[in-house]
Amino acid sequence: MRTLQVDLGERSYPIYIGGGLLSEAGEYFERHQLAKKSPVLIVTDDNVGPLYLSKVETSLQDAGYHTVSKVVKAGEKSKSLEVFEEIMTVAIQSGLDRHSVVVALGGGVVGDLAGFVAASYMRGVKFVQMPTTILAHDSSVGGKVAVNHRLAKNMIGAFHQPEMVLYDVDSLQTLPIRDVRSGLSEMIKHGLIWDKEFTDWCREHTEKLLALDPETLGYGLTQGCRVKAQVVSTDELEHGLRAILNLGHTIGHALEATGGYGQFLHGEAISIGMAAAARIAVNRGRDRSLYSDTKELLEGFGLPTTLPVEMNEDDIIAAMMHDKKFKENQIIFVLPVVIGEVEIVSDVTLTDVRRVIRELKEEGQHV
Amino acid sequence: MRTLQVDLGERSYPIYIGGGLLSEAGEYFERHQLAKKSPVLIVTDDNVGPLYLSKVETSLQDAGYHTVSKVVKAGEKSKSLEVFEEIMTVAIQSGLDRHSVVVALGGGVVGDLAGFVAASYMRGVKFVQMPTTILAHDSSVGGKVAVNHRLAKNMIGAFHQPEMVLYDVDSLQTLPIRDVRSGLSEMIKHGLIWDKEFTDWCREHTEKLLALDPETLGYGLTQGCRVKAQVVSTDELEHGLRAILNLGHTIGHALEATGGYGQFLHGEAISIGMAAAARIAVNRGRDRSLYSDTKELLEGFGLPTTLPVEMNEDDIIAAMMHDKKFKENQIIFVLPVVIGEVEIVSDVTLTDVRRVIRELKEEGQHV
Repeated sequence: MRTLQVDLGERSYPIYIGGGLLSEAGEYFERHQLAKKSPVLIVTDDNVGPLYLSKVETSLQDAGYHTVSKVVKAGEKSKSLEVFEEIMTVAIQSGLDRHSVVVALGGGVVGDLAGFVAASYMRGVKFVQMPTTILAHDSSVGGKVAVNHRLAKNMIGAFHQPEMVLYDVDSLQTLPIRDVRSGLSEMIKHGLIWDKEFTDWCREHTEKLLALDPETLGYGLTQGCRVKAQVVSTDELEHGLRAILNLGHTIGHALEATGGYGQFLHGEAISIGMAAAARIAVNRGRDRSLYSDTKELLEGFGLPTTLPVEMNEDDIIAAMMHDKKFKENQIIFVLPVVIGEVEIVSDVTLTDVRRVIRELKEEGQHV
Repeated sequence: MRTLQVDLGERSYPIYIGGGLLSEAGEYFERHQLAKKSPVLIVTDDNVGPLYLSKVETSLQDAGYHTVSKVVKAGEKSKSLEVFEEIMTVAIQSGLDRHSVVVALGGGVVGDLAGFVAASYMRGVKFVQMPTTILAHDSSVGGKVAVNHRLAKNMIGAFHQPEMVLYDVDSLQTLPIRDVRSGLSEMIKHGLIWDKEFTDWCREHTEKLLALDPETLGYGLTQGCRVKAQVVSTDELEHGLRAILNLGHTIGHALEATGGYGQFLHGEAISIGMAAAARIAVNRGRDRSLYSDTKELLEGFGLPTTLPVEMNEDDIIAAMMHDKKFKENQIIFVLPVVIGEVEIVSDVTLTDVRRVIRELKEEGQHV
């Protein structure tokens, strides 16, 4: 079992990474002195619930906690104000009070959704994350929680740090391969923005990571969380540095929105976005290998790096302009400098973006 | 013009109280260095909008700000997730970014609603309050923002401090008398919980306050805000002391919920709640004058202190049990000790509450 401390002053919290942790949830709750008199609300989805909900409930109940649960439909569409309100209804009807804990048992969608419930129920209650996807190694660090607006992703949310993250790597063994690849996409991103050595390690361990080898996965997740934690500790409220975590996200989010949050998984969308960012950097004068190395690395993990020819260029641009990263009429772009280092620029033009969209469509047709 | 500083460390902010301030909004924005490149969203309602919106827009535009506005229907029913989502739609479509300011131009409803928009749009943007009611002297201090859930009031919200409060007392001159009384109810509360001298001042200035004499009103509002600011500075996140501000609110909120947020204005409901709290305190052994003095003071302002006989006792109890102040199966009650001092108790029983409901119904029939 590995423990990683996310250092945020009085909002600091530990991430526990290891096997069998879901069965020990009750002990971890006790260790963190979470209130036993107040109901605990576990939010999960209909993929994860059948597999792990009863395990968590049993462990908490054995330790003397009263639990209630809300199972939402799996998928990004549950990150809506409507589902948010449904969970609030359960919370009120179950008598959750200010000392209650809201648990997110699932991936990034459940984490964001339950996290925003925890942030705003009675103006904020305690929050515990139990990620069951690889992708969630990213979203479980940093306290960003949100729901989507139909016009743009993550528009409605808060910064709300958890009390702890219980990361049971056993729960990753049941992931569909597409989710595995999508999750590893964020892990790779953490290398690309911050740590060439970790990027090399990812490339060398591509097969073991895809095969979900527990020891390799445990190390990779810890490293990924560590990069994220370092960045977030420096800039909790995203005033500056934290923006580097958005590598691949400017175009990535637009692709998700354009595809109606269904066509691409998050990690797939940002994989294309990272390839696009590398291509823009090369178009602006960086070494050509930056693009080819990035593309090769991502494709090694079975991740997409090109755009379907049928996607509408104007739709992508329109979605991008609704994004939070579009500020005072400028697009804020994270571009790679070399592998392991990025820069934040504000002078990428819409013409640059239109060009890369066409280039990535063309690349797709040559496959 | 009076200035009162709310002391909350790096979240401190000033309240400016005086005449003509809405016409100077642009200068105050400049003084606080609010960004000119980003759109400002003014949220108001269909009572206040026709009277003051163009005044604020003109002042901001003359100073070089780009403004957009959203006018909601007046009344507590607008404090819903549906209206919250509508405002988010306007914010997104108008291109509000992270440097944008959301302005609440109106009373407590608009303040709470626009404040929660400011707290959660892109995970938080800047917020400026321009209260146009007396009641809002209370809600504009302390950073509590929220919308209602159909099962209970203020269940979904955040703590989000404004950049400043611009309190133009000229805007109070157009208030209907029922709103004047309701607003003064919170001002009286600030005396009752904290300051016997201010309570006496309120009693002596009943007529001038009801007549909206500018100088008297300016002093009363400043004192009311000062009490609130002192309590909030000590306990921003309501871990202890801040709860004393809930005098009259345990039963008051239940009355509002039972009446479908229409029958009672907020100040009327808490007036009854304060009378009830005094009566409970007397039933538990405090001096009888505590109840009669409180009742006389409130009635002097034309505020209700009794319950309509047709209100259902069980409905009131049920609504109370959904309230945030209902914790770990105990009702947290704020009870007066003497005029100007309260205590927080957790041993008021449902029997005590049922008794006071019956007593206040009976009092109502004897009028």
